[in-house]
This record gives sequence, structure tokens and C-alpha cells, in this order.
Amino acid sequence: MKSKRRSINNLISRPFQKQPKIGKAPGSVIYLGKRRGEKFRVSLMHYNEAEITEEPLEKVEAFVLSPTSRGVNWFNIKGLSNTEEVETLGKSFGLSALTLEDIVNTDQRPKMDHLDDHLFVVVKMIYPGDVNQFHIEHVAIVLLRDTVLLFQEVEEDVFEGVRERIRSSYGRIRNRKADYLLFALLDAIVDQYFIVMELMGNKIEQLEEKVYEKPNADLIHEIQALKKEVLELRKHIRPVKELVNQLIHIENSLIAEDTRPFLRDILDHCNEIQDNIDLYREMSVSLMEIYMSNMSNKMNEVMKVLTIMASIFIPLTFIAGIYGMNFQYMPELHERYAYPMVLGVMALMVIVMLIYFKRKDWL
Amino acid sequence: MKSKRRSINNLISRPFQKQPKIGKAPGSVIYLGKRRGEKFRVSLMHYNEAEITEEPLEKVEAFVLSPTSRGVNWFNIKGLSNTEEVETLGKSFGLSALTLEDIVNTDQRPKMDHLDDHLFVVVKMIYPGDVNQFHIEHVAIVLLRDTVLLFQEVEEDVFEGVRERIRSSYGRIRNRKADYLLFALLDAIVDQYFIVMELMGNKIEQLEEKVYEKPNADLIHEIQALKKEVLELRKHIRPVKELVNQLIHIENSLIAEDTRPFLRDILDHCNEIQDNIDLYREMSVSLMEIYMSNMSNKMNEVMKVLTIMASIFIPLTFIAGIYGMNFQYMPELHERYAYPMVLGVMALMVIVMLIYFKRKDWL
Amino acid sequence: MKSKRRSINNLISRPFQKQPKIGKAPGSVIYLGKRRGEKFRVSLMHYNEAEITEEPLEKVEAFVLSPTSRGVNWFNIKGLSNTEEVETLGKSFGLSALTLEDIVNTDQRPKMDHLDDHLFVVVKMIYPGDVNQFHIEHVAIVLLRDTVLLFQEVEEDVFEGVRERIRSSYGRIRNRKADYLLFALLDAIVDQYFIVMELMGNKIEQLEEKVYEKPNADLIHEIQALKKEVLELRKHIRPVKELVNQLIHIENSLIAEDTRPFLRDILDHCNEIQDNIDLYREMSVSLMEIYMSNMSNKMNEVMKVLTIMASIFIPLTFIAGIYGMNFQYMPELHERYAYPMVLGVMALMVIVMLIYFKRKDWL
Amino acid sequence: MKSKRRSINNLISRPFQKQPKIGKAPGSVIYLGKRRGEKFRVSLMHYNEAEITEEPLEKVEAFVLSPTSRGVNWFNIKGLSNTEEVETLGKSFGLSALTLEDIVNTDQRPKMDHLDDHLFVVVKMIYPGDVNQFHIEHVAIVLLRDTVLLFQEVEEDVFEGVRERIRSSYGRIRNRKADYLLFALLDAIVDQYFIVMELMGNKIEQLEEKVYEKPNADLIHEIQALKKEVLELRKHIRPVKELVNQLIHIENSLIAEDTRPFLRDILDHCNEIQDNIDLYREMSVSLMEIYMSNMSNKMNEVMKVLTIMASIFIPLTFIAGIYGMNFQYMPELHERYAYPMVLGVMALMVIVMLIYFKRKDWL
Amino acid sequence: MKSKRRSINNLISRPFQKQPKIGKAPGSVIYLGKRRGEKFRVSLMHYNEAEITEEPLEKVEAFVLSPTSRGVNWFNIKGLSNTEEVETLGKSFGLSALTLEDIVNTDQRPKMDHLDDHLFVVVKMIYPGDVNQFHIEHVAIVLLRDTVLLFQEVEEDVFEGVRERIRSSYGRIRNRKADYLLFALLDAIVDQYFIVMELMGNKIEQLEEKVYEKPNADLIHEIQALKKEVLELRKHIRPVKELVNQLIHIENSLIAEDTRPFLRDILDHCNEIQDNIDLYREMSVSLMEIYMSNMSNKMNEVMKVLTIMASIFIPLTFIAGIYGMNFQYMPELHERYAYPMVLGVMALMVIVMLIYFKRKDWL
Ligand SMILES: [Mg+2]
Ligand SMILES: [Mg+2]
Ligand SMILES: [Mg+2]
Ligand SMILES: [Mg+2]
Ligand SMILES: [Mg+2]
Ligand SMILES: [Mg+2]
Ligand SMILES: [Mg+2]
Ligand SMILES: [Mg+2]
Ligand SMILES: [Mg+2]
Ligand SMILES: [Mg+2]
Ligand SMILES: [Mg+2]
Ligand SMILES: [Mg+2]
Ligand SMILES: [Mg+2]
Ligand SMILES: [Mg+2]
Ligand SMILES: [Mg+2]
Ligand SMILES: [Mg+2]
Ligand SMILES: [Mg+2]
Ligand SMILES: [Mg+2]
Ligand SMILES: [Mg+2]
Ligand SMILES: [Mg+2]
Ligand SMILES: [Mg+2]
Ligand SMILES: [Mg+2]
Ligand SMILES: [Mg+2]
Ligand SMILES: [Mg+2]
Ligand SMILES: [Mg+2]
Ligand SMILES: [Mg+2]
Ligand SMILES: [Mg+2]
Ligand SMILES: [Mg+2]
Ligand SMILES: [Mg+2]
Ligand SMILES: [Mg+2]
Ligand SMILES: [Mg+2]
Repeated sequence: MKSKRRSINNLISRPFQKQPKIGKAPGSVIYLGKRRGEKFRVSLMHYNEAEITEEPLEKVEAFVLSPTSRGVNWFNIKGLSNTEEVETLGKSFGLSALTLEDIVNTDQRPKMDHLDDHLFVVVKMIYPGDVNQFHIEHVAIVLLRDTVLLFQEVEEDVFEGVRERIRSSYGRIRNRKADYLLFALLDAIVDQYFIVMELMGNKIEQLEEKVYEKPNADLIHEIQALKKEVLELRKHIRPVKELVNQLIHIENSLIAEDTRPFLRDILDHCNEIQDNIDLYREMSVSLMEIYMSNMSNKMNEVMKVLTIMASIFIPLTFIAGIYGMNFQYMPELHERYAYPMVLGVMALMVIVMLIYFKRKDWL
Repeated sequence: MKSKRRSINNLISRPFQKQPKIGKAPGSVIYLGKRRGEKFRVSLMHYNEAEITEEPLEKVEAFVLSPTSRGVNWFNIKGLSNTEEVETLGKSFGLSALTLEDIVNTDQRPKMDHLDDHLFVVVKMIYPGDVNQFHIEHVAIVLLRDTVLLFQEVEEDVFEGVRERIRSSYGRIRNRKADYLLFALLDAIVDQYFIVMELMGNKIEQLEEKVYEKPNADLIHEIQALKKEVLELRKHIRPVKELVNQLIHIENSLIAEDTRPFLRDILDHCNEIQDNIDLYREMSVSLMEIYMSNMSNKMNEVMKVLTIMASIFIPLTFIAGIYGMNFQYMPELHERYAYPMVLGVMALMVIVMLIYFKRKDWL
Repeated sequence: MKSKRRSINNLISRPFQKQPKIGKAPGSVIYLGKRRGEKFRVSLMHYNEAEITEEPLEKVEAFVLSPTSRGVNWFNIKGLSNTEEVETLGKSFGLSALTLEDIVNTDQRPKMDHLDDHLFVVVKMIYPGDVNQFHIEHVAIVLLRDTVLLFQEVEEDVFEGVRERIRSSYGRIRNRKADYLLFALLDAIVDQYFIVMELMGNKIEQLEEKVYEKPNADLIHEIQALKKEVLELRKHIRPVKELVNQLIHIENSLIAEDTRPFLRDILDHCNEIQDNIDLYREMSVSLMEIYMSNMSNKMNEVMKVLTIMASIFIPLTFIAGIYGMNFQYMPELHERYAYPMVLGVMALMVIVMLIYFKRKDWL
Repeated sequence: MKSKRRSINNLISRPFQKQPKIGKAPGSVIYLGKRRGEKFRVSLMHYNEAEITEEPLEKVEAFVLSPTSRGVNWFNIKGLSNTEEVETLGKSFGLSALTLEDIVNTDQRPKMDHLDDHLFVVVKMIYPGDVNQFHIEHVAIVLLRDTVLLFQEVEEDVFEGVRERIRSSYGRIRNRKADYLLFALLDAIVDQYFIVMELMGNKIEQLEEKVYEKPNADLIHEIQALKKEVLELRKHIRPVKELVNQLIHIENSLIAEDTRPFLRDILDHCNEIQDNIDLYREMSVSLMEIYMSNMSNKMNEVMKVLTIMASIFIPLTFIAGIYGMNFQYMPELHERYAYPMVLGVMALMVIVMLIYFKRKDWL
Repeated sequence: MKSKRRSINNLISRPFQKQPKIGKAPGSVIYLGKRRGEKFRVSLMHYNEAEITEEPLEKVEAFVLSPTSRGVNWFNIKGLSNTEEVETLGKSFGLSALTLEDIVNTDQRPKMDHLDDHLFVVVKMIYPGDVNQFHIEHVAIVLLRDTVLLFQEVEEDVFEGVRERIRSSYGRIRNRKADYLLFALLDAIVDQYFIVMELMGNKIEQLEEKVYEKPNADLIHEIQALKKEVLELRKHIRPVKELVNQLIHIENSLIAEDTRPFLRDILDHCNEIQDNIDLYREMSVSLMEIYMSNMSNKMNEVMKVLTIMASIFIPLTFIAGIYGMNFQYMPELHERYAYPMVLGVMALMVIVMLIYFKRKDWL
């Protein structure tokens, strides 16, 4: 039974998990996630219309680029638990302590900060994992002039499609600035939300099937686990809509005017996802209602069986009891056909009862 | 039982249905709907106060019109699964890749995009089909100067009335610009929503009748299916109100000042439909409440029958049991009138019981 | 049972009732209500500080007034099903097709339209009819310079008090312009809402009495019918508040500055009515809760009776059964005082049981 | 039982109570309250930093003050059912008919009107009365230059503290203008709301105690009566917050700039009271949940007793029945130790049953 | 049982607790809390980049600082029940009577007042105490030019980390003005809210475990107590978000431009906490649903046992009763194998019943 429940641990913080941060100054770069031990890796993809280079970076010093190189620089930084390296790298790009803190703060909810010379975006990468589960990973993106810094906790990501499009010169991405890359990354993340929505819809459908076809007491655990998952998704996805809306309306030359229609396209998708999440919540309520009604139905059926059995046989037993009494003067006992007559009366009573229950629709 | 349930599939996306789009660049024109195989057909209706021409267009090249022809051009494009043709046609009218993507994206929720030289509207055409079902079809409308492009998935549509009015010179439509045609198309779609509302109201009424008159355990399935349908309608209709409101307040010469009162008329209708949908939701909650209360009532009745039967006959059986005991010294057994007296006492007990239950209103 | 239910038909549109409008151009003047056959009647009340004339108008041509006549003209038009006459009359006052359509559209929700040279108001006249029912009638009011057009479906109305005040020169109405007449008409309508609220409150009070004093399974029908009536009233009354608010803030010389305090007085009343409707909804929820709890209570009582009877007599019957066995070697059977002793033990068991149930508060 | 229910009459208007107003012109000064027969009394408190005079006013003519008298005039008018006197007095201060109407309209919800040369405030005075009840009285306040008119229905009020502070020269009130007196009166009223909140909190606490310790079916009446009281308080208190907020932001020289911080202090209190009312609503929902769960628990216990008794004794009775059969060939009947063996088997069955029920935690 | 319930006293005011304030002028400095008897203590921490002094202040006169001392002065005032001393101190800093009143008013909800030359903030310090409980303490902060006054009821506080950072010159606090100290204090308080959230999450997790694994009737008390705690936290934490938002947008030179990003960081945290509180509320609803469903399940199981036992043995007992009748002419009684045959029939009936119940999934 345990395995079917989704531990509350995934939804709420572990006790005193944040204690390392208590009493610390703001801007303390402290990792709160569960992905310790991931190696710190930085890779750089540099591209313009004409050329593209991809290379892993060994040393932090290598981050400084030759000013002659025209185009977009996409730094992909993995392994956020290595807070010192993250701090060194971030400072070399002029990020503030508060931004650095939020980059490694895996509890930070999705948001956008509009800073002097860069935009800072936090968002959750959610994608399906093993059977009927999904991964939720913290992603922080910094948009600088000509440069995007993408911070992830783990190796795996959902951006392979973006890389492919850059490599293959397919699409408009190679002709565009860094803001379009930011869009492409957000788009890749939001596209995955659809996959998650569909997975979720499937789960609900299967659960509905079970609730209708073979309801049992364990289903309440599954329904409540589903409800929790929907709440969890909502928590991580709902702020994204607001964030994208802010990006669309921001007054900042980092976001070019012709990138905004693309951001509006993401906003459309966020609206659709929001619709779905609302729908799923309603459905989890419906599942509970159906479940509770099924329970009542079953109880009704149990009670009907009991009532039918008892109502038929208790009166008969009483009659048998009458003629089991030992009174000396009971004339019936000595009648020749008393026994079959009593049996006949009993049969009649059963028939009457059955008709009554049939009429009541209990049979 | 299965047939009575509305499959969740109609409400939520099929698993991994959107996978073809994952990793693709935005603006990828990919059809997601279920209407593959519909032929691609374009027809043009050209009209002004004086004249009207209607013709199917064989070749895409034919779309370019002679500049001398004054009046409104209504292109009706059917068969969205033919994405290549849609793309060619759209590009010849200068539509952007993002717009083209949303034209064929049957999952796109209703919305309005305000672009440089055209307005783009997505809306759902909902109309009654076979018994107690309704069709939901994706419709995209582009309003250009003097031209309306109407994209549908299927042949069937709800615009025959609009065509008739154009043909018969009835009404003001022939004297007006393309913005009035956009209004007339939206009006035809919203008018159908009233038909759907009335169908839905009928369904609720029938269900209410059943819940009151002959409640049974299967009704919960029908009630929940109804609730889902209401949610589905709300999902597709609610955004239309916002969309129409945007059209009314847009600052764009494509929408003439004297068309806005007509759009406000649609807004009135949207408000009325919204009222109805809210009402239907409340009623589906009421139906559940009545159903659950009926279940309780039935249980109460079952229990009453059991209690009455048991309360009357168990004590009688006990008395019979007393005189069935085989003690050697039981003086009553040998009394001449003991047997009828015991029977009399039993009858008395039954009468007392019946009066008690009558008083309790259990009979 | 049927008579106690409020048919859903009153709340939602009849199936395909609107079909006559489908495909028609906007501005088609089509009557949707149920008051066909009412005669078309127009009467004119003309007044200023000095004089007053009241006359039924036979011919539509008579509508044109001599320009020398100073004062307010109140046209009272009855019998909206006569759409042709309504159209002729309306056009003679310069009303647009859209306004004419809404005048006879009895489904139009309350609203205010601000047009070039007139204001158009739709509102519902709700007043008590026969026992515990109320009528809901569609009313359309047009405010022109010096002229008010009042359209009703039926003869009966709630404006007799306004007419009396005009006739008797009582109050300020004779010294004021047409905007004050518009106010007086709205005020008369909203005053009736209070009567309806009080009727409704009475109904709730009676129902509460029933739920507490003699609950039975039919009450759920009455509670749900009440809930529907509250929803119905809310649907028609809620938009009025918004409408009055628009009238107060409109920038239009048709509404004089010193009429606005009077409109604010109506707004106060709308707020109070809104409070009441919210309260009534809460109370209908409370009634359901009480009803459901009463059902549970009754079930509890039934079960207690069953349990007490069964728990007392089943063990006694068992003991009687023991001594009814026919074993050859049962020494007790032959004891002189075995029978009274067994009866004593049985009595003791009954007493113990009764004390136990008393302690449990089941008796 | 009746006495425990709070009659709905206190919450909603009496049937046709407002009928006297129907058809009357707006501004008709008609008393709707229940305090008829209270004598009309006016007293004047006149004060400035230097001096203070307090006198009952016998004649309405005496209201006109000598223009030389510098300071604040507080007229305290009691006995609103004397509408003629109220009207005469009000008109001598230049109040409009609409204001006069609302002064005696005891159904008027709390509000603020901003008129040409005065501010008009309606608010409800709520204070504890006899055991566990509270009084709700209508209060109207008019703020003129240097003058405050305070209208009440009854003699009793909550302003003795304010009078004391004026008399004793304690505090800043003697050095301030009429706007500060308005504040002081509102503050006195809102302070009483805290007393009412605490009384209410106590009631909830006592009810919670009862629901936990000795639940019975009557408690539902008390819980629902509590819920109604909370709704009633909310209805009268919620608009006060809005009203005070309007007073703070009004642009009118009647409210001095340095009085606004004091009004903001009242706003703080209104926020706190709002928090409490919300909390109390949640708690009344909680009480219902606990009550319903207790009912279920009790039912469970009843059923357990029944099931245990029946499950133990029905099988035993069956065994006794077996050996009570009269077959000629039943070898066991003649065994020497058959009887004690059967009794042993029965005892064993009881033990097995008891262990089973113990394991199920039913004992 | 009592110990498991959280007394409502902690949530709502004690009866007539506020009575001392009734009738008093606004600005009366009256202590309402429960921490009477705490000694009045003032300590001063004075610091700039170069130096730091910390000293307890014996006399109130010592508060006046030498004007030459450059840097930030943090006065930490403890023991709010000493209202006279608080008043003297406050007045020496020019605080208004209304501010002084709110400083000692422990019922004041969190808020920010923007006054002429200072900002006034009220907030609740919430931190974990003994097992599974948390303390809620009233804190008032006044921000003046170069000076912060921090008022607490008790000795214990959550600011040790801030003091450490000042003492150790760690972080940027020593180089900053008083506004940064205000931020640091608020940050310390909000950081503690995370600890409280985690504690709460743990409680919910434990309760969920109990509800699933060993549900019993007492759990409803724990669930409802949890719900109350969540409501209590929400009451104290929700206004903080609004307060911080006001601080961010205030136009006042007391808050430097470069402190606002830090306040925004607190806002992020408030948002996250708000998310958690919402989640916890949903979970307490879920717990109730699971609990109620478990109750139903148990009832179902009890009823099944009863029904199975009764349905099997009542018919058998009837058959035994038949052959226990004393009719003279019952041929079966004399058959040689009648007894074993009857026993066989009975066994068959049991088997049929068991198969039936197995099929119904009741076994
Ligand atoms: Mg978290
Ligand atoms: Mg954080
Ligand atoms: Mg996308
Ligand atoms: Mg799109
Ligand atoms: Mg829920
Ligand atoms: Mg979809
Ligand atoms: Mg799209
Ligand atoms: Mg989309
Ligand atoms: Mg239409
Ligand atoms: Mg219209
Ligand atoms: Mg409801
Ligand atoms: Mg529900
Ligand atoms: Mg309608
Ligand atoms: Mg219309
Ligand atoms: Mg309409
Ligand atoms: Mg009125
Ligand atoms: Mg009024
Ligand atoms: Mg009123
Ligand atoms: Mg409910
Ligand atoms: Mg009232
Ligand atoms: Mg009024
Ligand atoms: Mg106060
Ligand atoms: Mg205060
Ligand atoms: Mg205060
Ligand atoms: Mg409720
Ligand atoms: Mg409090
Ligand atoms: Mg306070
Ligand atoms: Mg912090
Ligand atoms: Mg941060
Ligand atoms: Mg943060
Ligand atoms: Mg709740």
C-alpha cells in the first residue's frame, strides 16, 4: 500500500532542510536540493548565421570570450551543488549575490527578475521519468547581451531539440540574438508540460476506469495521491504564466520587439495548460464523489442482502418455534395434515416476501 | 454501462499526441486534430453592393485577385490536415509562421492576435450532432483589408445562413466591409452556442426527472458525464467572451467604428451563455446532492424493514423458545389454556410493536 | 410530487426555442417570449409642472408630437409579441435595428447601452403572483431627450405608483426631466425586488421550520427548488447593480447631475438585495446540511432500536435453545427449580443489557 | 428546541415589511424599524478648548445656534420612529430628502455619502445584551461644518466614553474640530465590535466543547444558529471597512489632514475584525464536519455492538437448534458426555469470535 | 483527549480581553498581551564600517545620542507590558500616540504605516518551541534616519544571526544604513517562517500516516486542530506579503534604492510561504476526506461480517427449527438417514452461500 502513496516529502520541504540558511546573510550561496554529487560541468555553444562551435570548458578562466567573436554564447552549467564554482562563474559575469543565491536555491518558485544589465528567470523543468512518474528539476536562466547562462542540477535535460536546430541551421534560431535563445529554451520547457499533462490525463483516465469497474478501498489512496500530484504541478506551473507575461511586457532592449510574438505563443500554451490543470482538479473531485457514492452503493447492497435473508427466515423460524413448544394441549400437533399445511403457509410467506422485495426493486 | 460514460479522451489530450511537436521550432505547421483525410478545398465568395461571384478555386495561384475588383473576398478553406497547402496559401497572404502554426493547431484555445496588418481569431464551432451529442470543430479566421480567410477542418459548417444573406442581398452585409463579415461569422458561431445550451438544458431536465422518479446506481455515471460536458463547453466558450471584448476595444482601422455595436451584441450573447454555463454547473452539483440524498433515503428504508421484521419476530421467537425447553418442571406446559394464552400474548406484543413503529413514522 | 418541483423550464431556455433566430441577420426583430396574443397598445402620458395629459394612442402616426409641447413624454408600449408594430414605432424614434432586436428579445439579460442620442436599458420586472410564486417580465426602456419609451410584454405592471405621483403632482417628478422618470421607473422595479426578497425569506423560514420539525424525504425536492429560485433571481437581479452603476457614471447630458444622487439611492438598494441573495444561498446550503444530518440521525435511531432488540433477545433465545436440546443426559432438566432459575438468569441478563444501553445513552 | 434556534426573522426582512414604501416617491421619510414608541429627544453638547455646555433641547426652534459660539456642536437625536420631528430637524440643517429617508431607514446597510456641504454616514451599533445575545441598532451620522448630528433609534448607546472624554478634558478631543468627533463616534462603535467578536468566540468555544464532549442531535441546531449569527454580523460589519476607507481618501475640507491617521487606526481594527469573522466562518464549517463525523462514529459503534452480539449468538443458537430436532436416529443425543461437549464447543466458538473481534479492534 | 486539541483561545481573543480599551481615547497605550511581568530592558547596538559598540541602557535619558556619532543605532526594547517606559522612550523619539498604542497592542495584525519622518512596521515573530508547538510573538519596528527601534514582548528572539553578522563584520550589513538593518530583521523573521512551515509539513505527514495506517475516531480532533493551526499561521503571515510589497514601492528616502532588491528577495520568500499555506489547507481537507472514507469503509466491513453471519446461520436455524417441531405426523423424523441428510443439506447451503459472498467479493 505504501508504494501507491506519493510521499508528502515530494510536495513539502523536509524538516529543517532550510536550517543551513537561517541566520545567514542574504546572498549566501547555499544549495538546498537533493542532487549533491553531480559533477560541475560547463559547456559553451557559440553560434551566428555563419558558424557554430561547441566545446566543454575545463577552466573557469576560459569563460572570458574574445570580444571579436560575433554571435550568441550559450553556456550550459550543470551540477548546481558545486556552489563555489557556480559563485566564481556567476561573479565573472557580474551576477549579484542575490541572483547567485536563487540560482542554487532549488526551492525558489518560478519568477523573473529584471536587473540592471540582465534578466534572471527561474523555472521548473518537468518531464516524464519511469512508469507514471515525472521529474521536477530546478532551472535558472540568465540573459545577458549576446549571452545566455543556463543552470541545471543534473546532466539530463529537455533542450536537445534546441541544440539540434542550432546545429542543423534549421529554423530561424541561427539568425537571431540571445533573446530568441531564451525563448527557445522556455518553449522547450513548456512543450514538456504538455507531455506531462497528457501523462496525467492518462492516469486520471485509468483511475476513472478502476473507480467505475472494480472499486475498492485502496482507490482512495490513489485518488488522493493524484490530487496531490495535480497540486504539485500547479504549484510549479502556475507562476510560469505570470513570468512569461512579464517578459512580454518588459521595457528592456535585451528583448527585441520581434521576439515578443514568440513569447506570446508560449503564453497561449501556458493558458492551455492552466485550463487543463483546472480541469484535472475538478476531475479529482469527481473521482472522490464517484468513489464515495460507490461505497454507499455497496453498503446498500450489503444491507439489502441482510434484510432480505432476515425478513424471510426470522418469521419462518418463529413459526417453527411455535410448533416446537411443549404445551400439553396443542390440538394442531395431532392433526393429520398439520405439518404439510404449515410448510405450505411458510412457502406462501416466502412468496409474498419475494414479491414485496421485487416490487421494492431490491432483487 | 460504458456507452453512457463520456470518455475522458474527448476532454483531455491523447497520450503523447503532441509529441510530433516536441523539439520542433515554433512556427512548425503540424496538424494535431483527428480529421485527417479531409480533402483540401478552397472556395471564394466575392461580393459588393452590386455583384456577387462564388467559385471553387482549383489552384493556389488563383488566389491572387485582380486589384480592380472592389468588394469583400471571403476565402473558405477546408481540410486543415493538408498542412502544406495551408502553408502555401497562408504565405501568399503574408501570414507569419506562428499564425500558420495556430491555424492547424486544433488544440489552440480561442484567442485573438493583433498583428501588423491583420487580425487573427481562433474559435470553436460547436453544434449539435447525433442524439444528445455535439461536435466541436476548430475554426481559424484571418481578417485582412477587404479579405477574410476562414479555415475549417471539415466540410460541414454553421455559416450557410451568412452565405444566404449575402446571396439574397438581404440585410446590410452586402453594403459593408470585411470586418462586418468577420462579425457575421462570429455571430453565426455564437448563435449555435445557444442551441447547444438548450440541448444541454434538456439533458439536465431529463436527468433530473430520472433522479427524482427512478433513481438507480448508474445515474451517478450520467451525472458525472454531464458535469464533464459542462466543463468541456466552458473550456471552449469562456475565452470567446474575452476575445470579443478585445475586438471591441482594439485600435485598428480594420475594425470600423460602426461595426463595434454589432460586436457588443455578440458580447451580450456571450454574457448570457456564461450565465447559463454557471447555472448548469450549479445544477450538476444539485443533481449529485439529490442523488446522494436518495441513496441515503433508500438505505433508511432498507434498515427500517429489517428493524421492523427483527424487532417483531425475535422476541416472539424467544417466547416460543421458552416453551420449547425440556425442563421437567414447567407447570405452564400442562395448563389447559396455556397455548392460546401464549398466542394471545404474542399477538398483543405484535400490536404494541406496530403502534410503536407507527408512532415513529416508520410504517 | 411533481407539483412541488419548480420545472427547470423556467430557468433554462426551451429546446430550440431560439432556432427562429439562427441564420438571421443581427437586428432581426423576433419575439422569443411566451406572451404571444397580448394586444399591442400604446399610451402616452405627457406632463410638465403645469399640465398633464393621458391618452391611449390608436395610430402609430400619432406618435409624432407637436414641437411646441414642452415637458416629458412617457410612451408605455405593451404587447411585445407584435414585432411589426414595435419595429414601426421604434424606427419612428430612430432606434437602431440592434436596439429593436433587444427590445423584443425576452432572453436579453439586464444591461445598459449608451448610444448616440439615447440610452437603452433592459431590466426584469419581478413581482409576486399567486401563492408563493413570482412573475418575471422583460422590460425595455429607452431614454431620449424629453421622452421615455417603456416596452412591456403584458398589461400588468409595477408603475401605478409612479403614475399616481405624476397625476397628483405629489413629489418632485412633475418638475423634472425625462431622466428623472427613467429613475422613477427603475426605482419602482427595484422596490418590487424587496417584496420578492421578503417572500423568498418567508419561504426559507417555512422550509426551515419543516426541516426542523417534521423532516421527510420530500423536503429535498423543496430545498432544491428553493435553491433554483434563488439562482434564478440572482441571474436576473445581479446585472442590475452594474447597470445602475453605469448610469451613475455615464458622461451624457441626458442624465442631469442632480438625478445622480437618486440613482445612487437605487444602487444602495441593489447592494442590499445582493446581500440578501448571498444570504439566501448560504441558507439553502444550510438547509441541505440540516436535512442530511436529520437523515443520519433517523438512521442512527433505527439502528439503535434494531441493536437493542437483537442484543437483548438473541442471547436469551440461545439459552432457551440450549434447554430445548434433546440430549439424554442433561441433569439440569430434571432439577426442581431449574426453570425459574433460568428465567431469573434471563431477567438478570435483560437488566444488565438495559443498564449498558442506558450508559451508552442509547435509551 | 425552538428557543435554541435563532429565528430567521432577525436576519431577513419580515414579509411585506417594506410595503409602506412601495409606490412612494424617493425621499419619503418612512420608519421601518421595530422601535416605535421611543420618545423623540434631542440633546446638544457644545464644546471648545475652553468651555462645555450640555443641554436637552425642548423645542426644535432652539436648534439654531448663535453664530458667535465658537466650537463643536454635537446633536444627539433619539427616537427615529418620530419621522415628522426628524424631518423638521433635518431640514433645518439643510439635509436632502434622500438623506432624511436613509436616516430613518433602519434597513439601510452601512455606507458613506459625500454630499455638497456635508458627509452622511450610516453604520450599525452592535453591542452585547442579555445572555449570549447582542443588539444591532441603526445609527446615522451627519458631519457638517462644526456640527455633528447623531441619530439613534433608542436611548441606550455606546458613546458614554466619548462624552466622558469631552467632559473631563482628557485627551485631544476638546482641541479638535467636528471631524475628530465623527472619528471618535465611529471608533466607539468599532471598539464594541471587538466585544461582540469576543462574545462570539466564546460561544464557538463552548459549542466546540459540547460537540467534542457530549454530542447530540440538537447540536446541529446550535451550530447552524451560530453560522447564521456569523453571517448576520458579517453583513453589518463588512461594509464598514469600505466606508472608513472612503472617509480616509475623500477630498473634502470637512475631514482635516491630521484626522486621517486616526481613521486609518479604525481601518486597522476593521481589518482585524474581518480576519476574525472569516475565521469564525471556517470554524462553523469545522464544527459541522466534527458533528457529522461524530454521528458516523456513533453509528459505527451501534453497528459493532449489533454485529458482535449477532455473530456470537446466532451460530450458537443454530447448534442448539440442531440438537433440538426430533429425529429418531440422532446417535449424539444418547452419548453420555454429548451435552457438556457441545457446551464446550460453544464456549470455544465464543472465544474464537472474541479473538477475531479483538483483532479487528472492534472491542 | 483535551491535550490533543488546540484550545480555541489561542486563535481568538479572550472574552472581554479588550474591555480596558473600550471608551478610552485612541492613542491610549494599553498592553493587551499575556507577557506581563517581563522586565523592561533596552540595549543599544551602534555600528558603522569601522567600529561597533554594544551596551545595555540603564536610564531612558541615555537614549539621546551624541550627534557626532556616525553610523546605525539599533535599539532593542524588551518587555512591552511596561507601557509607561515604552511611552517615555517612544516620545523621546517623536513617535505619535497612535504608533505607541500599536507598539504595545499585541493584537495588531501585521501592517506598515508610512508616517512623516519614520516608517512603522508590525509583524509576528513565529518560531518553534517545545514539541510540535510554536511561539507567536508580537514585534514592532520603527525605522528612523540612522536608527531602528525594535520592540519585543519577551527576551528570546530570532535575531542572533543578525547580531553575529554585525559583530563579525561578515556580509555587507556594516557598510549599510538603517534601512538594510530593517531588511535584515524582517529577513530573519521570514526565515523562521520556513522552519515553521517545515514543522507543519512534518505534522501533516505524521497525521497522514496515522489516517492511513491506524485510523480511529480521535484523529478527527487532530485533523481539525491542524486545520486551526494552518488558519492561525495564515492569519499572521498573509498580511506580511502586502506589507513587504508596500515597503518595496514606498516613495521615501528612508528606504535606499539598493535595498529594494533585498526586500524583493523577502517577497519571493513570502510568495513561497503563501504557496505552502495554501497547499497545507488543501491537505487538511484531503485528510478529512480520507478519514471520512475510512469511517465508511469500516462500517462497510462491520456490516459485511454481520450480513455473512446472519445470512448463513439464520436459514440453517430455520431448518433446525422445522425438525424441532412436535407434529405427530412428520414422516421424515423417522427416516433412518434423515438426520445426516439434513446435515448434508445444511452444509450444501453454507457452501452455496460462501460461493455467493466470494463472488460478491465480500470475503
Ligand atoms: Mg518548497
Ligand atoms: Mg527561497
Ligand atoms: Mg511551443
Ligand atoms: Mg501559437
Ligand atoms: Mg476538495
Ligand atoms: Mg486539449
Ligand atoms: Mg500554439
Ligand atoms: Mg497551444
Ligand atoms: Mg446573434
Ligand atoms: Mg442584442
Ligand atoms: Mg452548491
Ligand atoms: Mg462537491
Ligand atoms: Mg435564458
Ligand atoms: Mg440580440
Ligand atoms: Mg441576447
Ligand atoms: Mg426605492
Ligand atoms: Mg437611500
Ligand atoms: Mg435601502
Ligand atoms: Mg455541502
Ligand atoms: Mg434587511
Ligand atoms: Mg434606502
Ligand atoms: Mg479604537
Ligand atoms: Mg492602531
Ligand atoms: Mg489599532
Ligand atoms: Mg457552508
Ligand atoms: Mg486576535
Ligand atoms: Mg487592534
Ligand atoms: Mg531570507
Ligand atoms: Mg532570493
Ligand atoms: Mg527566495
Ligand atoms: Mg473546509
